[in-house]
Amino acid sequence: MPSSIPDIVISRLPVYLRALERLSHEGQEVTSSHELGKRLGISSAQIRKDLSHFGGFGKQGTGYRITYLKDQLRQVLNVERDWEVALIGAGDLGSAVARYRGFSNRGFHIACVFDSSPEKINKHLGEFVIQPLESMAAVIVERGIKIAMIAVPAESAQSVADTLIGAGVRAILNYAPINLNVPDNVHVQYIDPVIHLQRMTYYLE
Amino acid sequence: MPSSIPDIVISRLPVYLRALERLSHEGQEVTSSHELGKRLGISSAQIRKDLSHFGGFGKQGTGYRITYLKDQLRQVLNVERDWEVALIGAGDLGSAVARYRGFSNRGFHIACVFDSSPEKINKHLGEFVIQPLESMAAVIVERGIKIAMIAVPAESAQSVADTLIGAGVRAILNYAPINLNVPDNVHVQYIDPVIHLQRMTYYLE
Repeated sequence: MPSSIPDIVISRLPVYLRALERLSHEGQEVTSSHELGKRLGISSAQIRKDLSHFGGFGKQGTGYRITYLKDQLRQVLNVERDWEVALIGAGDLGSAVARYRGFSNRGFHIACVFDSSPEKINKHLGEFVIQPLESMAAVIVERGIKIAMIAVPAESAQSVADTLIGAGVRAILNYAPINLNVPDNVHVQYIDPVIHLQRMTYYLE
Repeated sequence: MPSSIPDIVISRLPVYLRALERLSHEGQEVTSSHELGKRLGISSAQIRKDLSHFGGFGKQGTGYRITYLKDQLRQVLNVERDWEVALIGAGDLGSAVARYRGFSNRGFHIACVFDSSPEKINKHLGEFVIQPLESMAAVIVERGIKIAMIAVPAESAQSVADTLIGAGVRAILNYAPINLNVPDNVHVQYIDPVIHLQRMTYYLE
């Protein structure tokens, strides 16, 4: 895999994969960069250029076989396998994340849930038994978990992240409304609805 | 307001604002582009350049007064006022969004919640009474609501978006795992945790 592919290209691949899964779900077998582009509001030239980084995946004029392209993108994104994910925080948001059914079939499943509140420990959250924060590092090391989702208050997020990273986590999806300081070999993505809303209000009069 | 400011600059302003709110919360009154940059993993030069689009907000060598810079960024982002937001979908995800306390003080409050399930209509969700989808357009027109969050299944998201836009909504935060087709004068942002996770697994071996 070429390592010089710009991150902005990588960031679009999951969006392509999601659109292909949707087309598949709708019963379609073949698509084109034109059709994908129309669905996604991206130019077909951009899509062809992005996919050409990985060999192209389609023949000129015949379009893309959806099953094949999905499989290839899954391989590129390393989600042809299933990743175990640790969830930290079992409040309102963490509970919603734990119950979200959209992870399976897209490469991820939550393997364990941790919280610091004594009254939550050993309670059930969906199919999970909530474990104490003190057990987190040991469980993550033992299971070799590399991915975690943080859904704790802003105040605790950095220390939770530090512990996760110390235990071997290399990718963090952070729902806490705070920026995390992490080493270069750790990836962080953020979900904060207010950030997204404020990006749009700029354009509203 | 200059209209030629790149969207990538706009996209960073809410992140700066969030960091400033955090510093304020911690009791700090003055900060620097260096300190902000260190917190955010962004170069101080980038921060100064971004802020210079709007006049700079700080004097060379004395740093930024946090209260002043917060106020200025709020004005730039149009969140010195409070926006009413409509929430569509009262399932697990919609319920978590409705209960999220992070909107207030950052420019937004949920004003109404809609769902299509007959068994949910007129039930309470936190402080809200869930209203039927059929009332959505009329309520949005009457209240002049411009912003909506979509938390319905992928299958229904486009038709919900079409109705919202017809009723005057100009900014949509879409939690449904599907791309929306919208006119040029409507802004859409997406929240899909799997997209974020897949962006990171590319980099994990």
